[in-house]
Amino acid sequence: MSLTEFQSIRDYFSKQTVQRPDVKLGIGDDCALLSVPENKVLAVSVDIMVSGVHFPEQTAAEDIGYKSLAVSLSDLASMGAEPAWVTLAITTPAMDEAWLTDYCRGFFSLADAYGVQLVGGDTTHGPLTITTHVGGYVARHQALRRTGAKPGDLVFVTGTIGEAGLGLKIKQKHLELPPQYQHLSARLIERLNRPTPRVEIGQALLGIATSAIDVSDGVAADLNHILEASGVGARLEVQQLPVSECFSTVFEQVGGWAQPLAAGDDYELLFTASEESKNELHQMAAEYNCAITCIGQIEQQPGLRCYIDSTLLELESMGYEHFK
Amino acid sequence: MSLTEFQSIRDYFSKQTVQRPDVKLGIGDDCALLSVPENKVLAVSVDIMVSGVHFPEQTAAEDIGYKSLAVSLSDLASMGAEPAWVTLAITTPAMDEAWLTDYCRGFFSLADAYGVQLVGGDTTHGPLTITTHVGGYVARHQALRRTGAKPGDLVFVTGTIGEAGLGLKIKQKHLELPPQYQHLSARLIERLNRPTPRVEIGQALLGIATSAIDVSDGVAADLNHILEASGVGARLEVQQLPVSECFSTVFEQVGGWAQPLAAGDDYELLFTASEESKNELHQMAAEYNCAITCIGQIEQQPGLRCYIDSTLLELESMGYEHFK
Repeated sequence: MSLTEFQSIRDYFSKQTVQRPDVKLGIGDDCALLSVPENKVLAVSVDIMVSGVHFPEQTAAEDIGYKSLAVSLSDLASMGAEPAWVTLAITTPAMDEAWLTDYCRGFFSLADAYGVQLVGGDTTHGPLTITTHVGGYVARHQALRRTGAKPGDLVFVTGTIGEAGLGLKIKQKHLELPPQYQHLSARLIERLNRPTPRVEIGQALLGIATSAIDVSDGVAADLNHILEASGVGARLEVQQLPVSECFSTVFEQVGGWAQPLAAGDDYELLFTASEESKNELHQMAAEYNCAITCIGQIEQQPGLRCYIDSTLLELESMGYEHFK
Repeated sequence: MSLTEFQSIRDYFSKQTVQRPDVKLGIGDDCALLSVPENKVLAVSVDIMVSGVHFPEQTAAEDIGYKSLAVSLSDLASMGAEPAWVTLAITTPAMDEAWLTDYCRGFFSLADAYGVQLVGGDTTHGPLTITTHVGGYVARHQALRRTGAKPGDLVFVTGTIGEAGLGLKIKQKHLELPPQYQHLSARLIERLNRPTPRVEIGQALLGIATSAIDVSDGVAADLNHILEASGVGARLEVQQLPVSECFSTVFEQVGGWAQPLAAGDDYELLFTASEESKNELHQMAAEYNCAITCIGQIEQQPGLRCYIDSTLLELESMGYEHFK
């Protein structure tokens, strides 16, 4: 790719309408200049997405654009931070105008929805890889961390769990839904390609949640991250997991309860809060039109114990499901 | 690569001794939390380095580690910002402990020298690609930009120009220095692999330089960036370029003056300042033990005009020299 071609890639990314007052200098110099509001700290996170690893190779450019920002916004959500700006580093095999136009449509639809400004980027030639680096703001000493879970706290999760994983199986033709659930296929694939970062709920949880994380590796793996960081354990009531309405009909095919426990990519929020917060969370669920389900309780004894009808499960694998 | 292997990559990057007071939360959660000093703005920049494009494939891991941070610090330097923290996104073909140990040695040697803390990262499996995202601080309204060059301003450059390009030719065996200059080969290759980000001089130029950029694409191309951003032109006295002491002996072989004009990767600072600043810059050069050379003057008429002995040059190519 020539320099001129790369220049034209940059032109694609300079057309955003969002212009934030805290962005003092955006794209076009050696650095962007940002003014962080007083009494706030800056939350930053970086995510790499590689074609064929983090999304199937045949994924539509618009979905890749959306998802590459969504996973980063989800990191901000899990700290309770308000998204502000993003930089984008794209390695791409070729200058493909149609692909870039579609990518930008997906990326900017989400960026514009959250008032997130693209403030810098770099582009190079190589296998398709996208690295996003987001910045957001959160009140000092308020950010949700993984470290605050205490014995007695309840464990909650937003939305539904395992749907992105089912979407992947459908997309890879490893699963076909029974006729009466065929209409759900598109929604499950949408859950995979267009996860909803729980940005508003993340901020609403400030002062309520004692710890939080987003579900990218799977409920079991991500809850383990909280448990290890907080030095506690948990009892998880597996049947309380808020699964897809079609889950019971494909139960055997997808590996039973291990599926929602281990499937990644849902980008829901997994958090802990005191028992007294239950009413408040109930109201929050109504306000944001998003289920908030209690799925377990923090215990003093380290480790994660998963129960079905009071029987302790032994799960062989509770990690992230790789695409290949 | 398994998750466990990736975890061990993360362990390599969690061992830094630098602990900054403005880093409220470093590696280990969904985001890092940073407290930007009052009255400062945050300068951020992102750079991708791809093996075989931004550095020759056989480059030592320690040099790659050093250079991947150096190019980002150079972006901060060109704005006059003080480096603070960095995130690192590495795509690597395999978990190679020796390679990672060497990479970290190079990366942290430079990070520690400037008190830069690694606050986050991501690692994936794929062709070797390194994306660094740096953050630094600069007093409000003080940052050096590309936009402030005015007719009459002089054009200056730090250090020497074209040495990294000569180092690349030597490394690629496209050039052999004459016997009396053989001893310079190692230094020229070092200029390629271990550029010196002009961090201190960048900060010292605050309030003096009217515009600035770092020389990554080549003097001619980067000066053009300033000219376009400032809406001015310039006269460049090519023979004033501070070239390597061996340059005249390889003059014909390397393409004459086009070499220092077009060669990239020197990471010197190219800036403009008023004629009255000359004495101050002279003192600065002595203080930082780094040449600061006047190479031209800003003019009202747009465009870059390069002169040798009052003769206008016509340069076919003034862009970045790709590795391949």
